[in-house]
Amino acid sequence: MLNVNDTIIAIATPPGEGAIGVIRLSGTDAITIVNKIFPGKNLAAQPTHTLHFGRIKDGDVTVDEVVVSLYKGPKSYTGEDVVEISCHGSVYVLKQVLQLCMRHGARMAKPGEFTLRAFLKGKMDLTQAEAVADLIASQSGSAHKAAIHNLRGGFSDDLKGMREQLVQFSALIELELDFSQEDVEFADRTKFYELIEKLTNAAQQLLHSFKLGNVIKNGVKVAIVGKPNAGKSTLLNALLNEERAIVSDIAGTTRDTIEETLNINGIIFRLIDTAGIREHTQDTIEQQGIERSREAMSKADVVIYLFDLVESHKSKVVSDSIKEEVAKFKERDIKYLLVGNKADVSSIDTPAGNSVENILLISAKNKENIHQLKDALYNLVAEGQVKQEGTIITSARHFGALQEVVRSLQDIKKGMDNNLPGDLISLDIRTSLYYLGEITGEITTEDKLDYIFSKFCIGK
Amino acid sequence: MLNVNDTIIAIATPPGEGAIGVIRLSGTDAITIVNKIFPGKNLAAQPTHTLHFGRIKDGDVTVDEVVVSLYKGPKSYTGEDVVEISCHGSVYVLKQVLQLCMRHGARMAKPGEFTLRAFLKGKMDLTQAEAVADLIASQSGSAHKAAIHNLRGGFSDDLKGMREQLVQFSALIELELDFSQEDVEFADRTKFYELIEKLTNAAQQLLHSFKLGNVIKNGVKVAIVGKPNAGKSTLLNALLNEERAIVSDIAGTTRDTIEETLNINGIIFRLIDTAGIREHTQDTIEQQGIERSREAMSKADVVIYLFDLVESHKSKVVSDSIKEEVAKFKERDIKYLLVGNKADVSSIDTPAGNSVENILLISAKNKENIHQLKDALYNLVAEGQVKQEGTIITSARHFGALQEVVRSLQDIKKGMDNNLPGDLISLDIRTSLYYLGEITGEITTEDKLDYIFSKFCIGK
Repeated sequence: MLNVNDTIIAIATPPGEGAIGVIRLSGTDAITIVNKIFPGKNLAAQPTHTLHFGRIKDGDVTVDEVVVSLYKGPKSYTGEDVVEISCHGSVYVLKQVLQLCMRHGARMAKPGEFTLRAFLKGKMDLTQAEAVADLIASQSGSAHKAAIHNLRGGFSDDLKGMREQLVQFSALIELELDFSQEDVEFADRTKFYELIEKLTNAAQQLLHSFKLGNVIKNGVKVAIVGKPNAGKSTLLNALLNEERAIVSDIAGTTRDTIEETLNINGIIFRLIDTAGIREHTQDTIEQQGIERSREAMSKADVVIYLFDLVESHKSKVVSDSIKEEVAKFKERDIKYLLVGNKADVSSIDTPAGNSVENILLISAKNKENIHQLKDALYNLVAEGQVKQEGTIITSARHFGALQEVVRSLQDIKKGMDNNLPGDLISLDIRTSLYYLGEITGEITTEDKLDYIFSKFCIGK
Repeated sequence: MLNVNDTIIAIATPPGEGAIGVIRLSGTDAITIVNKIFPGKNLAAQPTHTLHFGRIKDGDVTVDEVVVSLYKGPKSYTGEDVVEISCHGSVYVLKQVLQLCMRHGARMAKPGEFTLRAFLKGKMDLTQAEAVADLIASQSGSAHKAAIHNLRGGFSDDLKGMREQLVQFSALIELELDFSQEDVEFADRTKFYELIEKLTNAAQQLLHSFKLGNVIKNGVKVAIVGKPNAGKSTLLNALLNEERAIVSDIAGTTRDTIEETLNINGIIFRLIDTAGIREHTQDTIEQQGIERSREAMSKADVVIYLFDLVESHKSKVVSDSIKEEVAKFKERDIKYLLVGNKADVSSIDTPAGNSVENILLISAKNKENIHQLKDALYNLVAEGQVKQEGTIITSARHFGALQEVVRSLQDIKKGMDNNLPGDLISLDIRTSLYYLGEITGEITTEDKLDYIFSKFCIGK
């Protein structure tokens, strides 16, 4: 994967028909290759950052009329020579141009290979490269905000700050080692304690942000469960209805939208399809429905337990079963919302004979209190950490590395507590620096890069 | 629709996630609008055909890091100022940038509105504009070739030639009218006959090409029909198998491919799904299957009638039914191929007691003679007109107008035969010129333009 001597090519726009389709080439031969199929102008003689209209020719045959964008390295996305061919957006035409370039020596790019080259050429560090993939995948305001923050180097700056302070101290301690015979202390231990404390706090704050970051990046899986006729499908529709309209307000953007997705205050909630449950409970025995609910619940981050207020008041059995469910949620540490439906036909707010706290009363049918339910969902997930200022960790890889950073910082502290010699403390400092460097990619392995970039889309 | 004083905007790349998504603006305010959200560089002061890296900002908030392509009119696709913003390919990001531009005064473009403006600004004529839509929709080599030919003005040139010759003659005849008292003939009637003959031939040749053109543009619907167990589904799979592999040889391009499509020598054959027929005939009475076959046949351009060679030899009833079918095809003027299956277990090449001509023997199971079947399909449709040199009419609109051209040319000829006065002949010449001009758009109405461009995709 780390071969950067050849010229890579890919279709950079989404698949399908459109007004424009873009083919991107990067590498030492990018200009030479396009020159061979774009007669009438010598691109090598043109200045960088210019646009050129003309024809793509396969011998005598015109394949397309295109605009070529010319970026000469190092002033390009990858740092290499980059040529983009803006074709008519037909899959057929794009394939023809792609194959033509490949016949002239370009190689099909692997996922993320353009961005990998940008990283290898020092155009961006690893957190910025990863932010590119996050930005493309962003479906909500908060995911977008976090990705842009990281793309612009926000996270890298945090880490660089930490790293620099550690390096400084490390230098002083290593200086002590050179003078170890003389028992001097260049590094002020009190200040060092303060620094370790400060860095640990900073790292832990970043670690803490991952809870929200993970939610921002991957969305929240929500299962709506409850007995047949509790109104689950009506609630599903009530939750989705308005949202659908927002999603489809701009023509041509909805084709790839994921179904049954709710955006609440910029966080994506994915409603696990429990429609099957509903349909089945009508056809077959209830037991089967309950089993399916359990399955849906086990996959969910949050469960909305919906019950019929009227039924729950009439029947002690129903009411008891709600209490049992709540007990199970608590026992299994499942986040849940207890929602009483059909508030339009019932003025009762507690199930018979049981006092269950925090019931949200709604009418799915009349769309009453749906907004409150959304707020409750959001608050359950965001838990007050929503002041989305500064860096939010959205990557499990970063989370793992930061855990190692905190661990080694604690080792440093322990070492100082036990008055360990400077060379041993220095080792722990290096461990900290190693993991900080691993996040930004200053320290990395080919396997790790392979893994990170394989999750990109082709053409980026 | 013909308002060209405002600035239009659209997402020009296909919907979905990709490395790049492009937003296109065209109009007098295109540069002003982008300047407001792209700080750090005054685009108005930059030369045309240049690329600019920077940030799209909504106030203080960075929306994306982008590359802006600048085209100053009239050297642009539309002839107006055009700005393209190449964003990270997230639907969310594209919508943000789109809405931001709209807040600053851009209006959402209607389908084809960019190309409409190019037409209105004289950047292309109507046949070229229509070729843009054809090119984007092209899925096969021949559709692509026809679209490129027309995009480059091939068809326009043909028409221009015809028009010029008619105009010349028309001028001479109108000159005669000025000297009508003197009974002179400036226009040589013999030469005029020759010209009308020549133009009629040319127009009729174009009309004739529409048969193939229609096939090239819209593909050929093929129904595979026959009795249960004739091997229809096996044949369907045999026909599709290889093709599927070809379609999917480049990653990322197959998502939108239409299922059950065969490309034979650059022409698209769409296999009408008769799987339903097959499944049903196994479950229910045969009569129902036959009815469904009839329905599929009525929608098809070509019918493959498949029968079991072994059965047809054993049973006079089966053999007779084949003969009946063939008779019906001939009666209804349906193009058909008679295909005997299971040639692997039968050496018999004619049904019992009946001589039916032109049976193609295959073994769907062993994929024997499938290639011959494809050739037969192709020849049935192309009928020797496949020398795809010169112009091929692919548009029903052009076909209709050319019919009117031929009709008026015949009227001219009739008028001369009957020695009609020059002013009446001149009227017919004008009718010819009118319809020729309508094809290229020299003569058109707003309604007609609306109709033509509404079939485009948004962003083109």
